[in-house]
Amino acid sequence: MKEPKAAVIMGSDSDFETMKACIRTLKKFGIAVEAHVISAHRTPERAEEFAKNARTNGFDVIIAAAGKAAHLAGVIAAYTTLPVIGVPMKSSTLDGLDSLLSVVQMPSGIPVATVAIGGAENAGILAAEILSLKYDVQAEKLLGFKKELAEKTAKKDADLQKEVAEL
Amino acid sequence: MKEPKAAVIMGSDSDFETMKACIRTLKKFGIAVEAHVISAHRTPERAEEFAKNARTNGFDVIIAAAGKAAHLAGVIAAYTTLPVIGVPMKSSTLDGLDSLLSVVQMPSGIPVATVAIGGAENAGILAAEILSLKYDVQAEKLLGFKKELAEKTAKKDADLQKEVAEL
Amino acid sequence: MKEPKAAVIMGSDSDFETMKACIRTLKKFGIAVEAHVISAHRTPERAEEFAKNARTNGFDVIIAAAGKAAHLAGVIAAYTTLPVIGVPMKSSTLDGLDSLLSVVQMPSGIPVATVAIGGAENAGILAAEILSLKYDVQAEKLLGFKKELAEKTAKKDADLQKEVAEL
Amino acid sequence: MKEPKAAVIMGSDSDFETMKACIRTLKKFGIAVEAHVISAHRTPERAEEFAKNARTNGFDVIIAAAGKAAHLAGVIAAYTTLPVIGVPMKSSTLDGLDSLLSVVQMPSGIPVATVAIGGAENAGILAAEILSLKYDVQAEKLLGFKKELAEKTAKKDADLQKEVAEL
Amino acid sequence: MKEPKAAVIMGSDSDFETMKACIRTLKKFGIAVEAHVISAHRTPERAEEFAKNARTNGFDVIIAAAGKAAHLAGVIAAYTTLPVIGVPMKSSTLDGLDSLLSVVQMPSGIPVATVAIGGAENAGILAAEILSLKYDVQAEKLLGFKKELAEKTAKKDADLQKEVAEL
Amino acid sequence: MKEPKAAVIMGSDSDFETMKACIRTLKKFGIAVEAHVISAHRTPERAEEFAKNARTNGFDVIIAAAGKAAHLAGVIAAYTTLPVIGVPMKSSTLDGLDSLLSVVQMPSGIPVATVAIGGAENAGILAAEILSLKYDVQAEKLLGFKKELAEKTAKKDADLQKEVAEL
Amino acid sequence: MKEPKAAVIMGSDSDFETMKACIRTLKKFGIAVEAHVISAHRTPERAEEFAKNARTNGFDVIIAAAGKAAHLAGVIAAYTTLPVIGVPMKSSTLDGLDSLLSVVQMPSGIPVATVAIGGAENAGILAAEILSLKYDVQAEKLLGFKKELAEKTAKKDADLQKEVAEL
Amino acid sequence: MKEPKAAVIMGSDSDFETMKACIRTLKKFGIAVEAHVISAHRTPERAEEFAKNARTNGFDVIIAAAGKAAHLAGVIAAYTTLPVIGVPMKSSTLDGLDSLLSVVQMPSGIPVATVAIGGAENAGILAAEILSLKYDVQAEKLLGFKKELAEKTAKKDADLQKEVAEL
Repeated sequence: MKEPKAAVIMGSDSDFETMKACIRTLKKFGIAVEAHVISAHRTPERAEEFAKNARTNGFDVIIAAAGKAAHLAGVIAAYTTLPVIGVPMKSSTLDGLDSLLSVVQMPSGIPVATVAIGGAENAGILAAEILSLKYDVQAEKLLGFKKELAEKTAKKDADLQKEVAEL
Repeated sequence: MKEPKAAVIMGSDSDFETMKACIRTLKKFGIAVEAHVISAHRTPERAEEFAKNARTNGFDVIIAAAGKAAHLAGVIAAYTTLPVIGVPMKSSTLDGLDSLLSVVQMPSGIPVATVAIGGAENAGILAAEILSLKYDVQAEKLLGFKKELAEKTAKKDADLQKEVAEL
Repeated sequence: MKEPKAAVIMGSDSDFETMKACIRTLKKFGIAVEAHVISAHRTPERAEEFAKNARTNGFDVIIAAAGKAAHLAGVIAAYTTLPVIGVPMKSSTLDGLDSLLSVVQMPSGIPVATVAIGGAENAGILAAEILSLKYDVQAEKLLGFKKELAEKTAKKDADLQKEVAEL
Repeated sequence: MKEPKAAVIMGSDSDFETMKACIRTLKKFGIAVEAHVISAHRTPERAEEFAKNARTNGFDVIIAAAGKAAHLAGVIAAYTTLPVIGVPMKSSTLDGLDSLLSVVQMPSGIPVATVAIGGAENAGILAAEILSLKYDVQAEKLLGFKKELAEKTAKKDADLQKEVAEL
Repeated sequence: MKEPKAAVIMGSDSDFETMKACIRTLKKFGIAVEAHVISAHRTPERAEEFAKNARTNGFDVIIAAAGKAAHLAGVIAAYTTLPVIGVPMKSSTLDGLDSLLSVVQMPSGIPVATVAIGGAENAGILAAEILSLKYDVQAEKLLGFKKELAEKTAKKDADLQKEVAEL
Repeated sequence: MKEPKAAVIMGSDSDFETMKACIRTLKKFGIAVEAHVISAHRTPERAEEFAKNARTNGFDVIIAAAGKAAHLAGVIAAYTTLPVIGVPMKSSTLDGLDSLLSVVQMPSGIPVATVAIGGAENAGILAAEILSLKYDVQAEKLLGFKKELAEKTAKKDADLQKEVAEL
Repeated sequence: MKEPKAAVIMGSDSDFETMKACIRTLKKFGIAVEAHVISAHRTPERAEEFAKNARTNGFDVIIAAAGKAAHLAGVIAAYTTLPVIGVPMKSSTLDGLDSLLSVVQMPSGIPVATVAIGGAENAGILAAEILSLKYDVQAEKLLGFKKELAEKTAKKDADLQKEVAEL
Repeated sequence: MKEPKAAVIMGSDSDFETMKACIRTLKKFGIAVEAHVISAHRTPERAEEFAKNARTNGFDVIIAAAGKAAHLAGVIAAYTTLPVIGVPMKSSTLDGLDSLLSVVQMPSGIPVATVAIGGAENAGILAAEILSLKYDVQAEKLLGFKKELAEKTAKKDADLQKEVAEL
């Protein structure tokens, strides 16, 4: 059985700072990552070619991040039957609302699995959840991750008590 | 190998009319479906119990539809490591914007794969895409579906020509 | 010199009802029209092929209408150096805001000349204005059209006087 | 008769800076406070357990603060018959609109008493108002507080006069 | 001990159709109701007088419904230390967003407990929750109500099964 | 002393149905009215000419109603020093938000006194208030109007009592 | 004949920084100004009393600035027949949209003449325009002001030429 | 044949910083540029005169940038049959949404070719695309520009690989 592998596609290199959390999350879950700057508008043929061959090239899921008109995830989804996860990026105007609507409001037939504006880490976790159907180890890792999340929150709750007492 | 199985959870029975398209799509893709009215707020323990046992009960993916505050998908996601697809429903005020933001803007750690407002069919297709990682037959069916989509659009283009000529 | 020619591309045949006003306007201005249903997501290769060859095929301008995520105009613009006019369509949720933002908020490098939500007639007039740089007859027709607009408004003003008197 | 007691629940420890004003207000009104970091998504069972036992544990009111999808107040409300006050937090995108809609747009049957985005102090005052039905001392303190508010505003008005004169 | 009593104030008689659900809910919970059309702008002195005397007149909570600029709840809250529940009404433009923001975004010092746009029933339930601190019978009734809600939802789930089977 | 006179300018004759309430209100207050269909875009020179001569022609105030981009009030204000009241009209998309922002967000130097979306009656009342500075009779009529408003609301309150009793 | 006089009312002393431009503009136009911090919610009786006596006290117009729920202008308008100009203030969330809607969306019967978010200077100019009906000198000053505006813009245009040449 | 020439009109000199990218783009494409500060509200006659004579003065296209109510592009379009490109500017409130709606939502008859909020460079490219119908050299330059865009993106993709490896 082949190893789990995800693609992280960004419409601009300025998205990389935010998307680092996504790549790190994928690596933490033991998912191989390939990351690319590919633009739906500036390099449309590269986007098409990447999407068309993604399944054959061993990818299980494609994560596409873009801002403003944010067509990237939709364009990728048009050319593949793999699940495509869309990450709307916040840009300098409209606080990410444009990106969100452009990514999520896909027409019938071509879904994009959209996460929160700037939701880079969640895109990685969603990929792990999707992969957990095929790779039991992902399901286990996700259980561990959920446990960790709960423990961190409990720890923060404990820490809070001191601070509250001092108010 | 077990058969692919999806759950379709609705926060209210009034969501059923819209979600029929989702159930029909899942069936078309040969995915077994179990549908339920479960409310994050009116039957929270049922939601918890359903989500906690979903993987053990053979579900591969959970589709959760809800309107307004629309917490259902998030609450389900809190209790499972399966991929959860959220469908924001349009209700009588705010044109679906409230539902969309409540479903998609999940905090780091607990993603919901959100589709368009009222995107019932796309939720079903996304489920098929997710299942295609594990079941090769889904990948084939998706290719067929994509081909059909293209053919229908080409047919509509042909039909349009007569109407345009008459303008 | 070749005759002026415009393409009117719609993401869905349901856009035709609204876009009739665009086609009629183009014809009124003596601009040859070719209309197609082409989807950025359902027939992406057709969109690419159409856009790539549009200039060679004698088109001067491409008008692209789409709703919701509304990637069509952007995808067409990625593959051509012709001016692309985008018409955001109102659909069943969000009152056209999603379409508008998806069409207009294009990234640097790939503009789409966006008109109002449902602005089919204006897309046609804008095409005539663009063509007026090359074809003097368009400039004359536009002057006539502007005069007509003013006269119609003056006529409405005259008609109003009776109605106001009766209040 | 037991003393008045309120819970202040935060979805994240980053909400504490804002919620200090709430805790201080409760203390100023002589209401005992217990504050916790509990997440609807990261520690859902803790949220359930806390909410279920809140009345028995002597709480009169629960204040729940969360941002983005902000399901916390709704999840708490699902498990208790105590009044739940929701405080939508502003986060890094959408300026608090997502939080507000997620908190306030609750479905019929499960209300959340929502205050302004970041309205930490008001959540505390609202708790005092609710408690004033049972504890006469709260009603008196609120009258005093309202008088103080008026006096401070009158003082600011007096101070303003000098500044205006200098313009 | 006096009986529980709530006021339901509407800015316009056109709000009555929606607010019937609130009045019926209050009655179902055994809470005495007095309902009035009082406008913050058309009868401001009546609003002031009503609010100032509400506690003395035996009211425990005031529910105020208004649309558009929707100042009513805030104006009432300015003159009383009772908890004020605000119900933003949907009107003919902006889909209720204006009403919601006008009701919920109160400045520090004067909270309004806001429910969903058109959330008439929830305003009644919230009043019952608030009264449950003082009247044990309300707490019991709320438990019964919550159980009923859960049973109705379970019934709807059972009914759904037949419909799903027929798809 | 000349009689008070107002102009009511509409960008389209389709605005007349809504603006009747404005014209009737002005007449009720004894203010002479002249109403016109004048478009900032279709008859810009007529708009300019009307605005430039309005003061000389005896107008005291200009009320301008327009929808969508709604530049009319701003364009009129550019050419006159009379107070200009803007009425944003609801049109077929965006629920009047576009009209409102286009009318109200005027740059420094050129104000437009904006009323609510579709606020035709209020535009008339505001004109009467403005005229009350100069014509004492307007001040008296406004007092009478305010009293009438209060009485009507009180009457509605009385009528409501029967309906509430029957619930 | 009495001198022209305007009141500038602010809901909070934090609005003063923005409203200085309004006071300065009024003074520039030779309009006497009285400025006050008066809150619709913290000092409602002061607001009522001020508004009720404003005409008798020689005021011609009241300018009311407030943020968030921003009820001040509406509350003032409820108690006076003078024209009330509302200035929506931008606050820490929602970018001023809440303030704008709360100020402008007034119900039929009680208008508020709303200017842009933060439109302090324009509120002053609008006051001068209103006063120009009664005081001819204001009309003259406004003509001078408009001329100045045009000259400043022409000067900026001239200055721009050098900068453009250097690009 | 005359040389290609574009006008860049700004409502305020504060728009110049953003619009530099537009002017530079036009120059890069060999299009002569004339830039002006002309305000629809402060210098309306200058706007009218400029627009009316633009075609005669050899302009092929007019680019108009303005913020907030942003009537400039529409006012220019009212007086010319040349294509008018509108650039909505982001200002201090509402994040550019007001500007965008004011520019794009033009009524039937008078289109404005709208680009993204702050889309200065795209306005220049769109002008080049429009001019490419008449000047073959523009079409060639645009092909070169598109190739450059693609190469820059490919270069960024290559650069990204190192950074990803280091994560």
